[in-house]
This record gives sequence, C-alpha cells and structure tokens, in this order.
Amino acid sequence: MSSLQFNLQHTDPNSKARTGIIKTDHGEIPTPVFMPVGTAGTVKALTQQQLMNDINASIILGNTYHLYLRPGLGVLENAGGLHQFMHWDRPILTDSGGYQVFSLAANRKIKEEGVMFQSHIDGSKHLFSPENVIDIQRVIGADIVMAFDECPPYPSDHRYTKKSMELTHRWLDRCLKHFNKSKSKYSHSQNFFPIVQGGTYVDLRIESCEYISSKNATGNAIGGLSVGEPEEMMYEFALLCCDHLPADKPRYLMGVGTPWNILECISLGIDMFDCVMPTRNGRNAMLFTTQGVINIDNKKWEKDFSPLDEELNSEVSNYYSKAYLRHLMKSKEILGLTIASIHNLAFYMWLMNEAGKHIRQGNFSNWKNEMVKVLKQKL
Amino acid sequence: MSSLQFNLQHTDPNSKARTGIIKTDHGEIPTPVFMPVGTAGTVKALTQQQLMNDINASIILGNTYHLYLRPGLGVLENAGGLHQFMHWDRPILTDSGGYQVFSLAANRKIKEEGVMFQSHIDGSKHLFSPENVIDIQRVIGADIVMAFDECPPYPSDHRYTKKSMELTHRWLDRCLKHFNKSKSKYSHSQNFFPIVQGGTYVDLRIESCEYISSKNATGNAIGGLSVGEPEEMMYEFALLCCDHLPADKPRYLMGVGTPWNILECISLGIDMFDCVMPTRNGRNAMLFTTQGVINIDNKKWEKDFSPLDEELNSEVSNYYSKAYLRHLMKSKEILGLTIASIHNLAFYMWLMNEAGKHIRQGNFSNWKNEMVKVLKQKL
Repeated sequence: MSSLQFNLQHTDPNSKARTGIIKTDHGEIPTPVFMPVGTAGTVKALTQQQLMNDINASIILGNTYHLYLRPGLGVLENAGGLHQFMHWDRPILTDSGGYQVFSLAANRKIKEEGVMFQSHIDGSKHLFSPENVIDIQRVIGADIVMAFDECPPYPSDHRYTKKSMELTHRWLDRCLKHFNKSKSKYSHSQNFFPIVQGGTYVDLRIESCEYISSKNATGNAIGGLSVGEPEEMMYEFALLCCDHLPADKPRYLMGVGTPWNILECISLGIDMFDCVMPTRNGRNAMLFTTQGVINIDNKKWEKDFSPLDEELNSEVSNYYSKAYLRHLMKSKEILGLTIASIHNLAFYMWLMNEAGKHIRQGNFSNWKNEMVKVLKQKL
Repeated sequence: MSSLQFNLQHTDPNSKARTGIIKTDHGEIPTPVFMPVGTAGTVKALTQQQLMNDINASIILGNTYHLYLRPGLGVLENAGGLHQFMHWDRPILTDSGGYQVFSLAANRKIKEEGVMFQSHIDGSKHLFSPENVIDIQRVIGADIVMAFDECPPYPSDHRYTKKSMELTHRWLDRCLKHFNKSKSKYSHSQNFFPIVQGGTYVDLRIESCEYISSKNATGNAIGGLSVGEPEEMMYEFALLCCDHLPADKPRYLMGVGTPWNILECISLGIDMFDCVMPTRNGRNAMLFTTQGVINIDNKKWEKDFSPLDEELNSEVSNYYSKAYLRHLMKSKEILGLTIASIHNLAFYMWLMNEAGKHIRQGNFSNWKNEMVKVLKQKL
C-alpha cells in the first residue's frame, strides 16, 4: 500500500494546461482525465469489459449516497469492497454523498453534526456526518475518497455562502481527523481529497483555496461550480481556484461538463473531471462527435447509413450507423442506450487523449480554440 | 449465390437426435442450433459484438412484423437489407409476420386474401398477404424466409383447425409461387421454409406434413406448438411431425422453448429452435444455469458472491457474481438486463454445444435424461 502520487509531466506554453500521471495502488491514471460516473456500482448501460476494452477508462467514479442505500454497506463489506463487488480492478473515486443528499434526498436538514435526510427510494431516515461518510467510504474502498461538503445553490448571497463555506471547512477538519485515525479495510491505500467551496465570491473562493491547500492533501477538488452559473463565470472561478491551489497536486473540477467546458477548464489548469453528461445525454439521444453535436432522434438521420463517428476507434462508433441507432432509440431498444453511452464515453476519452497529445506537442491552445468551435456545432 | 444445403452428420443410436451443418451464403450453422431472437433488428440488450464474440450465435432471427413497422421497408432497402442495417454478417432467419399479427396487432381480420390488421404502435392499417410477406422478406434479405401461415390458438376444434390448415396450405402455394418468380435483392441467396400446422390433431398434422414435404423445400418448420398445450402433447406432436417430414432436410420447431423442452425435442429429431425465453425471462430476473433455475431477485442471493455460472465460458457468466446481478436488477440498472440476457443466451449456446457433443459421442439419451432433471431444479 502506498499513497497517491502525482507526477506532473508537460505544461502548455500558451495556457495553464498540463499533463501528468496519478499513481494509485490500482494503477496509473494519465491526466487530464475524464472519469465515467458509475453511480450505483455500474456505469449505466456498459459492461465492465466495455469500460475496460473499448472505453479504456483509467478510473471511474462511484456515488456514496447511492451505494450506501443500495446495495448497502453489509453487502459491500462482505464482497470485499466495491472493486470486488463490481469486479473492477482499476482505480475508483467516490464522492462523499453530500451532493446527492442535496439534489435527490427528501426532507434534508443541515446541522453542525451533519445532514439528516430521507432516502429517495423508501423514505427511510439517515444521517450523513463527516465521520460516517468517511466510514462509509472506507467500506466502499475507493482509491480516492472525498470530503463531506455543503454545496450551496446558485445564486446564493455572500452571507449564506460564507456560512456554508465555514461549515464545509469545519466538516473538512472532522473528515480529516477521522480519515487519519481510521485505515483502509482492504489491501490498497485510500487517499483523501478536500473540496474548495465559496460559491461565486472571489474573496471566499480564495479563502477556501488557502484553507484547503493548508491541509497538504494528495489532491484537491473544486466543488460548487457548474451548478447553474453562466459558463464564463464557471471559467473565471475555475481559473481563480487553479491559481490558488498547489500546482504539484492534481486538481479535480467536480461535475464538469460539456466537451467544450472540459477543454476550456483543461486550459485553466484542471486535471480531473467527471460528469453524467456523456451517459445521461446519450440515453436521451444526444451524441457528442468529433464533428459536433447530433440529436439522433432527428428525422434527418433516418437514412444516414454512415458510422456514428469514423474518427473514433471504438467498438461501436465506427461499427453502427446513425440510421441504425436512430431506429433503436425510436423503438426504445436497450441496445440504443448502450450504443449511445459507449459512443459518448469513447468520444470523451478521445477528447482527453487528444488534449494530452496537444499539450505534449506544445500546441494545445490553438487546437483547443479550433476544437471548441467544431464540437459546439449542431449537426 | 447458392441455395441452402444441409449435411446430416451424426445420429444418436438411442433417440432420433442428430447433428448436421446448414450451409448458407452467410456461413455455416452447426445443428442442433438455437437462434437468438432479434425482434426489431437487435437481440434485446446485446451488442452485435457480444452476440458474435461472447454468445457466438451462428444465426439470429428477425421478426417481419416488427421490422416492417419499424424502421420500415424504405430504410431497410436503402440500407441494403437487414444484415447491412444492423451490421450482422452471419445468417438471419425471418418469420413471416403471421404469428405477431395474431399475438400483437389489433383488429385483425383473416380473409382468403390475407390478414388485415392495425399496428400496435400507431393504429395504422395494413394487409399482410402471402405475396407481400415474401416481398417484405425480400427487402429484409434474410437467408431463410418463412411461409405465411395461420397459427390457430390452443385449444381449437377439429373443424376450425382443418379449415385453418387448408388456408395455410393455399397460402403456402401462393408464397411459393411468388417466391419462385421473385429473386434476392442482394448478393446472397434466400431460402424458403414452409410451415406445418394442424394443431393437436394427428390426422391433420400428418396431412400437413405430407403436403409440406411435397414442396421439397430446403428446410421445413413446425408451427402451432408451444402455444399453451401440455408439454407432453407438444412432444407427441413434435415427434409425429419429425416422423412425417424428410430426414435429409433441417426441421425447425418454431418458438420452443425451455432448456428441457429443447433437449426433449432434439431427441425427437428437431434441428432448429428459437425462443424469446432466454432474453425475456432474463430481463425478468430468471436465470437458466448448468445447475438449475435461479430467481436472481430472491433475497438468498444478496450476499452470494459466487459467479453466475462457473461452468460457462462467457464474458459475463463467470465474471459477475449473483449478488452483483441481484443488486443491478433490484436497482433497475440497464446493465442487469444486459448481463442476464448474455448469461441466459450463453447458457442456451452451451446447452446446444453439449447436446451436439453427446450426439457425436453416441450417449445423448442418457445425458439428456440426467440433464433435464438438473436443469429443471429451482435453486
């Protein structure tokens, strides 16, 4: 067992983009990296074989809230953790459950102690505290575990945002204390990432970055962005946070985003991303491609027998046609959901690989500016 | 382009079971064979890659009724047929649409000309006739196309069954005439199989077998069984039909069945099977295994981390655990449907391979009698 290491490798001369390698006990993660979201122990509609062989995901994300409710800790601990349970031998990151408690659960009450909430599945009552979300993440056994934070909605006023940030900081201290006195239940090390909050206030974001940085964690996350604020504001605060977080640790921007969001944020110094967008939007007929965005439900694809995306070297993207996927989606066939999800994830992985390549070549900025225009096009 | 050929290879000394090879322009099909059902151009929840590489299906079935309604003939013809449309290069068999018209469509009216019906999707009115189901199957381009028949429900009286059988025979003549004067639209040959009817009446079944046999088709199908009659009655009539159909042509028992139904019918001389059971029942949490039947929703599997079935050399059956699949099914995750479908199909394929092996070894009957007991067990 050894702690997470980050080796910074290349930096782009004309932006803050960089490449690196994160080393964990379950293997290496080249950055910049996109982490497919595997909510309840499955990246929706993909087998683990597809995730490994076709998508080649180097790390996936699990949701503590969902896993805690189903299958529950008894099953997960008996299985030997989430890696064993879902039979996935590469790295996993788990969120702390905070975000889902705020977005999914009913009757939530935030107190100093933690958050009381009711399950969205059966209405049962639960408490998440800084201590027990660490315990839960010890049972799940992710390689990277996240701090318990409050994520205020956008917009929130300065007073509320400051109060919330201070609570997040106190919770961080409790998380860290509990993390440091507990240990991994399995044969690999777990690593703890704190989360910056502070909403859309420059003073609070700087204060939070400095507080988080002082903990000297192996990596740092930025929360509370991509929650409804304008894109330009998200970029502004992502940049501010990057500038106030250590350069020698990976920076993880939580819950972002569209392909162009990701390219812009790479240029600001972000290393890690996760988002449900490729899978969720795929299930709703939206395809991201190297040529732009496709609504595959559109009549214009009915007799278009060209591959989904010939540029992508994926099991499905150059094997199945637009007309075929449109037929599957119109007919509500499960295979349509699978193909759209694999395709979109393959596209996101391609995008990260291309970004890394252009950073190494030293021409990331020009490439990014051109690519953002192409990717946003509606086909 | 060359017509379907059937080479009979081994016959079991203690039963009527046999092995053979069906040759088509899209490749060879070892018999006995199970054909996964790909209703609307997709074997539900599987990619074509999984169907080829993991299931190793040598032929799949498509439903004329579904394909005619969606994506429709315009799309299929533009695509260059169903093989091109779904990107499946192995053999395909299509039914004639008769069975779905009787089981799914609304307001159907049977006349000498054909069957008027309304689409179950949008209520639109359509006619299927012996001539146009041949035309439709020419557009779909299956390697094996089926006659248009009426499948009377069980039970039906002798008078109705006889009248229905005679209509099926007149329709057969019209199908054959139309088939012989039309030709394949693509670069492979299509082959026509007539269908025996006659319900559960010995005299009618014999009459129908003799009429069908007189057409000297490259293969013959038995319809109108497994429609609600007792299992023993199905076996009785499957045997009767096998005895009255040519031995040098493949015999296809339509819509059958459970693993034990299939083993019993192999022993009666059936070569080809299709059924939605492995995929449909899989989606409803019923798993067929080499040890017996599992209801994966059952609480007893909650902490059973053993593989679904260690005997099966499949992508999923020895990779995922019972507890994991149970979690996926309880959480209504798409991956649960995929794993259950792949597993059940892998099991059916294993069963056919084992059956072939034991026929070649000359010990099929003993093996079959033991295996039927094992497979029926509820675990």
